[in-house]
Order: sequence, then structure tokens, then C-alpha cells
Amino acid sequence: MQLDFETTTFDKEYIVLNDTREGIVRGGRDLFDRLPQAFEGVEQIGVIGWGPQASAQAQNLRDSLAGSSVKVVVGLREGSSSREAARKAGFSEEQGTLGELFAVIAASDLVLLLISDAAQAALYQSIFQALRPGTTLGLSHGFLLGHLEQKGERFPETVDVIAVCPKGMGASVRALYLQGSDTNGAGINASFAVEQDVTGRATERALGWSVGLGAPYTFQTTLRSEYLSDLTGERSILLGGVHGIVESLYRRLRAQGLDETSAYRRSVDCVTGPISRTVSADGLIGLYRKLDAAQKEEFAQAYAAAYPVGLELTHEIYDEVSSGNEIRSVILAGQRLDRFPMSKIDQAEMWQAGEVARRDRDDDALPLDPFTAGTFCGVMMGQIDTLVEKGHPYSEIANESVIEATDSLNPYMHARGIAYMVDNCSTTARLGARKWAPRFDYLLTQAAYPAIDQKSTDLDSGLIKAFENHPIHEVLRICAEMRPSVNISVQ
Amino acid sequence: MQLDFETTTFDKEYIVLNDTREGIVRGGRDLFDRLPQAFEGVEQIGVIGWGPQASAQAQNLRDSLAGSSVKVVVGLREGSSSREAARKAGFSEEQGTLGELFAVIAASDLVLLLISDAAQAALYQSIFQALRPGTTLGLSHGFLLGHLEQKGERFPETVDVIAVCPKGMGASVRALYLQGSDTNGAGINASFAVEQDVTGRATERALGWSVGLGAPYTFQTTLRSEYLSDLTGERSILLGGVHGIVESLYRRLRAQGLDETSAYRRSVDCVTGPISRTVSADGLIGLYRKLDAAQKEEFAQAYAAAYPVGLELTHEIYDEVSSGNEIRSVILAGQRLDRFPMSKIDQAEMWQAGEVARRDRDDDALPLDPFTAGTFCGVMMGQIDTLVEKGHPYSEIANESVIEATDSLNPYMHARGIAYMVDNCSTTARLGARKWAPRFDYLLTQAAYPAIDQKSTDLDSGLIKAFENHPIHEVLRICAEMRPSVNISVQ
Repeated sequence: MQLDFETTTFDKEYIVLNDTREGIVRGGRDLFDRLPQAFEGVEQIGVIGWGPQASAQAQNLRDSLAGSSVKVVVGLREGSSSREAARKAGFSEEQGTLGELFAVIAASDLVLLLISDAAQAALYQSIFQALRPGTTLGLSHGFLLGHLEQKGERFPETVDVIAVCPKGMGASVRALYLQGSDTNGAGINASFAVEQDVTGRATERALGWSVGLGAPYTFQTTLRSEYLSDLTGERSILLGGVHGIVESLYRRLRAQGLDETSAYRRSVDCVTGPISRTVSADGLIGLYRKLDAAQKEEFAQAYAAAYPVGLELTHEIYDEVSSGNEIRSVILAGQRLDRFPMSKIDQAEMWQAGEVARRDRDDDALPLDPFTAGTFCGVMMGQIDTLVEKGHPYSEIANESVIEATDSLNPYMHARGIAYMVDNCSTTARLGARKWAPRFDYLLTQAAYPAIDQKSTDLDSGLIKAFENHPIHEVLRICAEMRPSVNISVQ
Repeated sequence: MQLDFETTTFDKEYIVLNDTREGIVRGGRDLFDRLPQAFEGVEQIGVIGWGPQASAQAQNLRDSLAGSSVKVVVGLREGSSSREAARKAGFSEEQGTLGELFAVIAASDLVLLLISDAAQAALYQSIFQALRPGTTLGLSHGFLLGHLEQKGERFPETVDVIAVCPKGMGASVRALYLQGSDTNGAGINASFAVEQDVTGRATERALGWSVGLGAPYTFQTTLRSEYLSDLTGERSILLGGVHGIVESLYRRLRAQGLDETSAYRRSVDCVTGPISRTVSADGLIGLYRKLDAAQKEEFAQAYAAAYPVGLELTHEIYDEVSSGNEIRSVILAGQRLDRFPMSKIDQAEMWQAGEVARRDRDDDALPLDPFTAGTFCGVMMGQIDTLVEKGHPYSEIANESVIEATDSLNPYMHARGIAYMVDNCSTTARLGARKWAPRFDYLLTQAAYPAIDQKSTDLDSGLIKAFENHPIHEVLRICAEMRPSVNISVQ
């Protein structure tokens, strides 16, 4: 993969991550006055949809472009139930900033297609027809490419196709952007990809879009690399994996005799609180170094047992995504949703215990449990090594495996419980989390924990050495330097 | 689907299952003298492989054809580790009944391809080349058709393609055949399909094969219908479903304060013992009628909560199988197995408890827990209704959803624990059980049990009425009439 590009609008820099040079662009509010230049030829940006990403992106871009001549218009389906929410956020028919989906598409020079994956799969033909030649089609996720690959179809040849993919959920994209008014450069990192460049302006427009969203730094990928890592990541450590990990840890702690609240503190609260905060600030190695010798030993055991689970299941997930199975599954599941709506996941004991436990939580007193930390980091490193093996850029790996978890998803889980986090992600992610979480849970419960408890000689002590010497730590350090320290907590 | 056929060798009968007439053939040892006529033109039957199905089928056919001129020869790969086992079972190079795989294929008039699905996918091109024109290729499972459909390929046009698919694991195919020496007609029911008929003898050969295996009755299907129902059934109630059900029930009972052995008795032992024995003898409705009024009420609650789980997940599984995803997954998993071998599933608490519990078990004293029965039957009926909705023949539905569970798989699980059962099924089934069991577990735990415990008004009391009036009960009664009462217990 070529990780270099040309821009006359922004200042490209190079960073070297594990001996590979990546061209990147840093963001910041001081660059917003360059956005009109990046969007040269764009009079109107149409943001299609009002899901979590669409609403965050529409507001961020509108605010970043305030005072310029570039208009941000939200496009919704006739009769959309989101109309009132969009109006409340300041978009309106009267001002010409809210309109019907296809009309907005036809009138826009840059169309950000942020409706659900299922809606994209259902509507893409009409949408392609509505795009004028020379329009730039923007995606925040490569799902549609994956779907087209299945069908043996392609994007229309007469338009640009670009992607800017924030590595965080919509709520974080908005919340950290707002922090940017005090802390220049606060935001959610994003990848960008240029799939087709008809106008010759595709790269500038993508970078302008990303800077306008508030991305602290923007790194390059391809649309296919994006969807492979994105779908894999959300099924593994970001959602499915973390859900399965905490279910299995909570049950283990309960079986060891802990009461509900204590078990919740040492499993869920520990992952989403101190572990995430420490990794966000000091990286994975920083977390490890905080432990004393006895804790390091406990971490190392859990790590050695959990890493193979993370590696095996992330390999399986990656194969399922890469073969097209996962995208076909999502489409098929979408066709069943009317008859079989997704059930709630927060009725089980742990999440009921969490409701209680969150009420009187003292965040500073939460335990940093070394066993929980070793399990979580083991699965996370299994994902990292899978993506390394599959040839993904290190920026993508670090953001998709670590930073998105610690800076976006886990803080929401910490504040609101898993149901909120899961249900504020895309339907594709929610389906994936429901599908894969139980697999992580079973493999940890059936293989990893018994190996520890039986003091199995199968536990590979070399794994913790490999962890200590892993290039991801230097990569995370460099990534952390490119953004200000942000407050990831969610109230 | 046309459920009728012509045979001059055997006596075709019609049975009417839920208003649909199906042509069937009853088996029995008294018919073995007709086998040479059914196999007219077949001097040699090559049984390829020595897995559980292959070894059972090779021995049954050899024994059934003893004294005839039709020779049964086992074909194994050069250096196969199964050679000694085949020799021990009485096949030998000296007698010309044991040989190299491709040589046996080329020399046989009827080739029963019973190697693993992964091996079939890897070797099918060489195997097709080795088949002489006019050979009859026999399968015991439609997986290879599914794989060919994926690749856009076909069976060679110059050979017959037939299937005889025993609705039970290989060990049962042999064990119940041996019971047939005392109890005429004991055996495992089988479906048959004729996919290609070049010789004009395909139907007779399929029926001869099935009768020779000891099938009490043989019913018709198509190869595609077979693999859709077979892969779905083993992922749902037969293996994946039952595994997930007992895991969730055991954990629920432990949380209610039961000790390990008691929880095991009322979950696993109850399903694999009294529930399976009662359903095998008296059908699902017979199980229900054994309960008193209070027990019926408890059964009904569990049933109403579990049935939607069974229906939803079996629909999902069916879609995954039908779309080809599941077969692609199995192929992809096969490519990972060297690096990531399937882990053991019996290290977790419940299966360790089972080791202990089975040691001093009094089978006659095992409880028939109505909650466990309602949960198990609810998921089973969800599978039945899915297959009905998808248009499968009732014989296939009854055998693939109920009889295979009660007469073959569950008794092995009862005697040896789940690991034995799972690990004596095909790799395809083992992979499927590992994939889907946790899904059943999670949905029961997250949705079904909380609905019961919170006395949710969502529980649909109409479901138990639909159960009481379901046509499956009459179907099971008719199926039961076609075989002698067999001893399903396994020592």
C-alpha cells in the first residue's frame, strides 16, 4: 500500500511507524480557514442521514465552515423520524439546510453518504443515479465497496469516491470536536482513502472533510483496507471482544465468591475506567509498567492465556470479513430484522448489577485488576498482530485496535453501560457484537481460564516478552504525540 | 419437491405426513437377500475413508452382503493412520478388501465417498477424474454439492450421483445395526436422493445401500434439501443448540444455589436422559403429557421464552447455510486448523462436574425437570417450524430435528459427555457446534430467562397451544410406527 499523497492546501508530514513511512496531516482549528481552498469547486456539502455519525459530522462541518460560502445541507428520506432532531440541531428547510434525500444528493458537489449500511445496500442504485457527473461521493466506511464487490458491481465512473473514517463513534466525534474550542486539535483521528479521482480534487476534499471534522491527525488507507480493519475491529476488541471478555471475567469473579458490585468493579469498570484511561494516556506498555512485580506476574499469566484466543478469533473474523461472508450476513440479518428485532442485551445479571454499581462509583478508587488487564490486553494484542500480519498500515492498526477503544467506545460504556455503547453504533457493528461476543466468552471460559487455573504448561511465557518488545508501543507513543491530551470521560 | 420414485426391488409404501404423501421404503434383515438385485451391475462397492460414518457403513454393508458376490472394499490414502483400524475390523489387502484410495475408486462400480468435507473439498477434482463413466458416486451428505455450487462447478456428467444420509452419527449406525440381529428393523433412518441417473439404476442402488445399512425406513429428499437441513440441524438443536441450552441451564441452576452435581442432573442429564428417552418412545407430546398441571405450567413458560430463540437462531443459521456462508466458513476454518487446532470444550466447570456426576448416576432416578424440558422443546420446535416454513419434507424434518437427537446423539452425550459426542461428529459439525452454541446460550440468558424471571407480559401463551396442536406429533407417531422400539442407551 502506497502511504503517500500530494496536497497543496495542508502541510503533509511523514511519521515513521515500525520502519514504515506514512504521510499524514495534522488537524486543528487554526486550519479551518483553509477549508474553502480544500473544498474549491464545492458550493454545497450534502450530509445524507441523521444517525450518530451523520449528525455529528453535519454539525462539525457546519461549525468549521461557519462564515465561508460552503453550505452544509442535511438530506433525509421523506417522512424521516429524524427531521425534528435535525431541526433542533439548527438545520432547517427555511434556510435551505435541510431537504429530501435525493434532492440534496442531486444539488450537492460533495455528498457524504452516512445512512446505515442496510440503507446503502438497498438504495445505492438510485443514489448513484442521482449523483451528477463530477460530484464527489464521500463514505465514512468501506461497507458499500464490500457490498458492490459481492454483487460484481462498481461505483459510477463519473464521480470521485473518497472516504474519511473517524476512528470513534458519532457521539465522540461531536464531543471531542467541542473540546477543540478549548483545546486546539482535540478530536477523533480519521483515516482517508481516495478510491476514484475524476475531478483531480479528491485528496484535497478528503483532507478538508477530515480537518473539518476535527481529526487530530489524518492518515491514509484504501477503502478495502478500511472496511477489512473496521469490520474486524468492531467484531473483535472494540465491541464483540470487549463484551465477551467482561462477561467471562464477571462470571469468573462471581464464581470466586465476589458479590455482584465487586465483580462488576473488577471486570467492566476496570476495563472501561482505569485500563482505558491509562492506555489512552500512557499506552499499553505504560499500563504494564504501572504494575508491581506480583501484579506483572498475574498480568502475564492472563495475557499468555488470552492472547491466543484473541489471535485465533480475530483471524477467523478477518477471514469472514475478507471472504464477504460477514457482509452477506449483515445483509441477510437486515432482511430478518422486521420479524426478529435485535433483542436487548442488558437484561442479564451483569448489566443489571452494572446499573446499581455505576450509581455510587468513585472513579478514583476503581481497582486496576492485573488479571482483567492481562486478559483485555491479550485479546487486543491478538487483534493487533492479526492486522499486522494482514499488512495494514500501523496508523490504521493503532487507531482501530487501541485508540478507538480507549478514546471513544470504552468511555461511553463506562458512563452508560454496554447497551448504550452497542446501541449507539451502527447496525452492522451491533449485529457483529452480538455474533462474536459469545465466541470470545466461550473460548476464554473453555480454554484460557482453565489453562491458568490448572497451571497448564501450555502457557507460553514467551508471549509476555513479545508484548514487552512489541513495536506497537512506539507506534502508540508517536500517535499520542499528534494530539493534545483529551478528556475522554463521559458524563 | 416430488416425493415419489419407482423401485422393482423393494416395496414402496406411502405415508401421509401432515397431508403430504411421501413414498418410503421400510428396511429389515429379511430384505438383505434382495440386495444383489438392487446392486445389479455392481461387483464392487468402494467405501472411501475410515471416519465414524465410513467405518460403520463399510462394516454394515459387508455384513449385509455376506455370501453375495458383491465385494465391499475400503479405500484409504497412502499412509493413512486408519489402516490398522480397518484391518482390525476385518478388511485387508490380502483379501483385496483394503486398498489405496484412488485405486479403489477406479475399480469400484459404486463409490461411497465418506471422507471428511475438507478432504472432499481438497480432492474432489482428482476423485472425479478417477471415476469411470457409468460409476455410481454415493455421498452421505450434500456438502460437496454446496461446495460445487460455490465454485460454479458440477459433478461429472458421466456418472450417477446418489446420496444415502443416515440420520445419526456413525457409532449409532453401527450399534443399532447390530441390534438388528435380535430386533429385525433396528437401525438409523436414512434419507436418499438421486441427483444424477446415468445408469438408470441410481434409485435401486440408493435404496439397496440404505437397506444394507439397516435403515428402518428410507425417505426421499434432494441433495440440496439434505445439506440445508443437515447443516442447519447440527448447528441448531442437534449439537450447537443443545450445547448452548445446557450451558445456559446449568449456569442458571448454579446461580439459583444448586451444587454442581445437582445442577448437572437437572440440565445435561435431564436432557440427554429422561427427556430424550421419553421423546424417543412417546414423542414430544408424550413428554408434555407426563407432566402434572404445575409442571405443565412451568414447561409452558420456559417453552414460550425459548421457542422464539430457537426460531430466530435457526432462521439465521438457515440463511447462513443457504447463502453459502456456512460452507465457505467451514472451508476457511479448515485452512486455519493446522495453526489453530480446535480447542477442547470440556475443561469448563460444567463438563468437569459431569465427569463426577456420571460416575454414580442412577438413571432411573434422574429428574424430569419441566423448565429444562420446556427450554429444550422450545428450541427444538423453533427448528421444526423453520424447516417447515422452508418447505422441507416432514420425514426430513422429524428425523433431522427430533429422532436423530433422541436416538443417536443425545444417548452418546448421556454416556460420555458432550466432548465425546461433539468430537465423534464430522469436522463440519464440530466447527458449527462451536460457532453456534454460544449464540443460543447468550440469547437464552439475555432474553429468554430474564423474560421469565421478570414475568414479562411478552411471553406468548399462544405458543404452548400451537405446540399442543402441532402436526409434528402425528408425524412422530407415524415415524415411530415404522421402526421397532430400540434400546438407545449407550454403555
